Amino acid sequence: MTKPSETLDALNAMPANSFVAAVEKTFERAPWVAEAVSGGRPYGTVAALHEAMMRTVRQAPVDKILAFINEHPELGSRVKRAELTGHSQAEQGGLGLDRLSADEFERFSRLNAAYRQKFGFPFIICVRRHTRDSILRQFERRLSNDAETERAAALTEIGLITRLRLVDAVDGPGKPATTGRLSTHVLDTVSGRPAPGVKIALHEIGASARGLLKETITNADGRTDAPLISGEPLRIGTYELSFHIGAYFAGLKHAQSADPPFLDVVPIRFSIAEPEGHYHVPLLATPWNYTTYRGS
Amino acid sequence: MTKPSETLDALNAMPANSFVAAVEKTFERAPWVAEAVSGGRPYGTVAALHEAMMRTVRQAPVDKILAFINEHPELGSRVKRAELTGHSQAEQGGLGLDRLSADEFERFSRLNAAYRQKFGFPFIICVRRHTRDSILRQFERRLSNDAETERAAALTEIGLITRLRLVDAVDGPGKPATTGRLSTHVLDTVSGRPAPGVKIALHEIGASARGLLKETITNADGRTDAPLISGEPLRIGTYELSFHIGAYFAGLKHAQSADPPFLDVVPIRFSIAEPEGHYHVPLLATPWNYTTYRGS
Amino acid sequence: MTKPSETLDALNAMPANSFVAAVEKTFERAPWVAEAVSGGRPYGTVAALHEAMMRTVRQAPVDKILAFINEHPELGSRVKRAELTGHSQAEQGGLGLDRLSADEFERFSRLNAAYRQKFGFPFIICVRRHTRDSILRQFERRLSNDAETERAAALTEIGLITRLRLVDAVDGPGKPATTGRLSTHVLDTVSGRPAPGVKIALHEIGASARGLLKETITNADGRTDAPLISGEPLRIGTYELSFHIGAYFAGLKHAQSADPPFLDVVPIRFSIAEPEGHYHVPLLATPWNYTTYRGS
Amino acid sequence: MTKPSETLDALNAMPANSFVAAVEKTFERAPWVAEAVSGGRPYGTVAALHEAMMRTVRQAPVDKILAFINEHPELGSRVKRAELTGHSQAEQGGLGLDRLSADEFERFSRLNAAYRQKFGFPFIICVRRHTRDSILRQFERRLSNDAETERAAALTEIGLITRLRLVDAVDGPGKPATTGRLSTHVLDTVSGRPAPGVKIALHEIGASARGLLKETITNADGRTDAPLISGEPLRIGTYELSFHIGAYFAGLKHAQSADPPFLDVVPIRFSIAEPEGHYHVPLLATPWNYTTYRGS
Repeated sequence: MTKPSETLDALNAMPANSFVAAVEKTFERAPWVAEAVSGGRPYGTVAALHEAMMRTVRQAPVDKILAFINEHPELGSRVKRAELTGHSQAEQGGLGLDRLSADEFERFSRLNAAYRQKFGFPFIICVRRHTRDSILRQFERRLSNDAETERAAALTEIGLITRLRLVDAVDGPGKPATTGRLSTHVLDTVSGRPAPGVKIALHEIGASARGLLKETITNADGRTDAPLISGEPLRIGTYELSFHIGAYFAGLKHAQSADPPFLDVVPIRFSIAEPEGHYHVPLLATPWNYTTYRGS
Repeated sequence: MTKPSETLDALNAMPANSFVAAVEKTFERAPWVAEAVSGGRPYGTVAALHEAMMRTVRQAPVDKILAFINEHPELGSRVKRAELTGHSQAEQGGLGLDRLSADEFERFSRLNAAYRQKFGFPFIICVRRHTRDSILRQFERRLSNDAETERAAALTEIGLITRLRLVDAVDGPGKPATTGRLSTHVLDTVSGRPAPGVKIALHEIGASARGLLKETITNADGRTDAPLISGEPLRIGTYELSFHIGAYFAGLKHAQSADPPFLDVVPIRFSIAEPEGHYHVPLLATPWNYTTYRGS
Repeated sequence: MTKPSETLDALNAMPANSFVAAVEKTFERAPWVAEAVSGGRPYGTVAALHEAMMRTVRQAPVDKILAFINEHPELGSRVKRAELTGHSQAEQGGLGLDRLSADEFERFSRLNAAYRQKFGFPFIICVRRHTRDSILRQFERRLSNDAETERAAALTEIGLITRLRLVDAVDGPGKPATTGRLSTHVLDTVSGRPAPGVKIALHEIGASARGLLKETITNADGRTDAPLISGEPLRIGTYELSFHIGAYFAGLKHAQSADPPFLDVVPIRFSIAEPEGHYHVPLLATPWNYTTYRGS
Repeated sequence: MTKPSETLDALNAMPANSFVAAVEKTFERAPWVAEAVSGGRPYGTVAALHEAMMRTVRQAPVDKILAFINEHPELGSRVKRAELTGHSQAEQGGLGLDRLSADEFERFSRLNAAYRQKFGFPFIICVRRHTRDSILRQFERRLSNDAETERAAALTEIGLITRLRLVDAVDGPGKPATTGRLSTHVLDTVSGRPAPGVKIALHEIGASARGLLKETITNADGRTDAPLISGEPLRIGTYELSFHIGAYFAGLKHAQSADPPFLDVVPIRFSIAEPEGHYHVPLLATPWNYTTYRGS
């Protein structure tokens, strides 16, 4: 995330051509969107500005919409080159998987070709809200849509993409929620206390790979000093938290364990479906049992 | 439960008048039911015999059905005198509540009068499948039925009553399920072992009283030597299991507790809705947390 | 809790006699304590001021300490008249139990007499940190102490009493922790969401009575808008939270329940041992199972 | 497991030389053990016969014990050739890991050489009670023992090996416990019922490999028709049960899930430390939470 370069107040006050220059990059190669909403200023919230821009797109004639959609680059190349893998971990929120393998590149190429042949425009998806596996699953699902459903799906994704860009570019009141949060805590139910010093690893679990996103250690409250993921959309996909509770209990006098301990590294595998949601995935554990749940 | 006095084989082989004499008491003051099914012998299962008798009742003319229903005594008196309170605990499976209070007797009397006025026959319910609170709830619910629905409800209850009587009276293959089971076990999740020596009390929880049904202690397997209830229908109603885990953990070196202990007597309150079901209600506990569930 | 009437800054700056007048009421009938610490000003924290006062007491000659202890009124009368029952609920933090019964008053009288005979001074306990049952238990335990242990115990309690009074009277940095917190939340693990609209009751469970402390309802986050108890010491004793989850699940389409529901009002009984601690006692529930734990 | 070829009764009754011929193979190349216990017949239990044989070994002069230990083949070769990998899955209880890799073979060779140099006899371990990882861990641990401790450890292992062989060879009363059991069940806590039709996989988790031991499906009781492992020692080591509850809940109308489901394949990773123990590792689950524990 880069620091927003403008405030909503400034955008509301500046001359029309400055306004267009400031926000047109949000909608790829479509300055007409910014131009159309300039006269609607002032906007009370960033969300209201974004909604006005999306309304402009949706109310355009079908030909113009299709041309606009067509201005978007093909996903295959973007995935390969940039969005999914080229950005630094900091920008990406640490997807952790390597670049596309030859097989995956080939699969994307085939899907792109089939999609363009069926719909006549490129497959559009808000990449920042998905893991690679999730993109592939969406790709295959949407290929079976009819043309009208798919045009709507493309606009929905464009709404998500441009919302993220606008939130990145503009500061002000009423920013739409574009970030999620993944957090955890560990409770030692032998002693009824938060478990400090427990090593936790977070992996993304892909069909063909497993990528380490984060390693951390619980603090005195049994929590991590920072959320496991925050400040960005949670990518739809499958994850695994590994809690090293064997080492934790081995360090306590009172715990009755075995050799080897019944529980050592506890894997909690779960999927995220709401990129803007809050997923709290705690662990309540003894050396012999545990409970986990989606909390909030 | 008394020992069955006849076997199905013997009933199948005996002269018709002996057969009628042997089974007619199952259907109150209705020897015609036994007479009608005598010719259908031999019956392969006790359930088949019972079904034949109930078919006879259901296929009788409406007048005869109503007369048959009317032969049943009014519940109020039965409840007061016998079924709910007069039997010894052993016979009753330990309902544990005292005799009807004056208020409750009055409430039953009012319900009986209202019911008879509306339907023209007495309220019939298989008392052995209900706690007193459940009988009252059913009474009030069924008062709002229309006549036909309620006639069917009365026959359903007569089916349940006579099924229990027949199962008590006749031994043989294919006895219908008329008994339920309530069981528990206690798991010490600090040490990953069954918890022995845990005192457990079972109460029936009524709207106006709380009756002790059983006190017991877990054995080396963390279970009770006998099910908490078995060999009879489970009475529909609300119960509470009290697990004395504070005393249990106080006796162990490894448990980290507080003074007073966070958990001492753990109450688990639940209702039974299926008299012929199996309810397994275990406790997984540390001094600081517990989990319970309906298991099987 | 009343609003503190002075700031530490003001106490540090005022003339000695004003200082003594302002803080002497903290230590019953012992202006010499305030006088002794006046010269030690300025104090950096409220805790430092309190520690200086307690050090003065502890370093006094035994005779003076005993005289000081003897200035405290007998508990029996205080309990009866004021501390435990006479204060309004708001002042007391809602203990909820009624005034002493004749039996209890008699029991307190007997304990007071036995205690004074054995030790020669009245039984002192920081009443605001205990339920009535806990006071009685402490009373009986401490009666078996030897004189020296018990003199130390009395001073410890005086430290707790005066700490509370000083924190009530003086605002400023470094106030010692004198308040605890009891909180809860309800998670619907059928739908993986906080459970809103769940009625919760909190009772104090005494040996001879059950007092309602609070009734509330969970908000959209499955939490209560305010902690169940906060802003005061948690009274050492036994409590019961009742969660009305039967009504909650009955209002949801997706929940599979029974009639009557297996779980209706779930009682969670627990004891508090640390008046200044944070007790988070949540419920994770489906219509058929639940988990609770001491969280934080 | 092969069918025992003799009964204890027959062994007790046969001539001494036949007895020796029948049981000498239990103790490798040491017919003197069988000869020494022949005169002690009749033995009341298989355990008593085994104890007599082990007593004979332990009471032998140190030189004879060392010679006896030395008759045992080196583990490296056995592991490579036979015990761990050469036997069929049925005989082995399905260890599931492939043959030793070149690296592992090299590691065993180095350990064998170091061990023989330090102690002068081969490393002996009851292979049927361990996974390969567990054998390596034991190997490294025991290398740091002193000579006397390690001689005792070798005899303990010989006791375990010969006990298994004797139990395999002789039928009769009082067989010592040589088999363990691993079982599971799945409870659907949304509906308070056992979960039928849930696919379960059991893997052995090794440091360098993951071996599938079993795939099965829960029956109407939420259990597997046969225990996951039984009739043999449980190999000390780490295992993972995978419960396919996503597919299960997707098939039910009432479950509220997400897309993708929060929980799909739930991995439960645990270690077994008692080869003759009973490990019951159940899963209590909704689409959003689960609990597991070592039960019994």
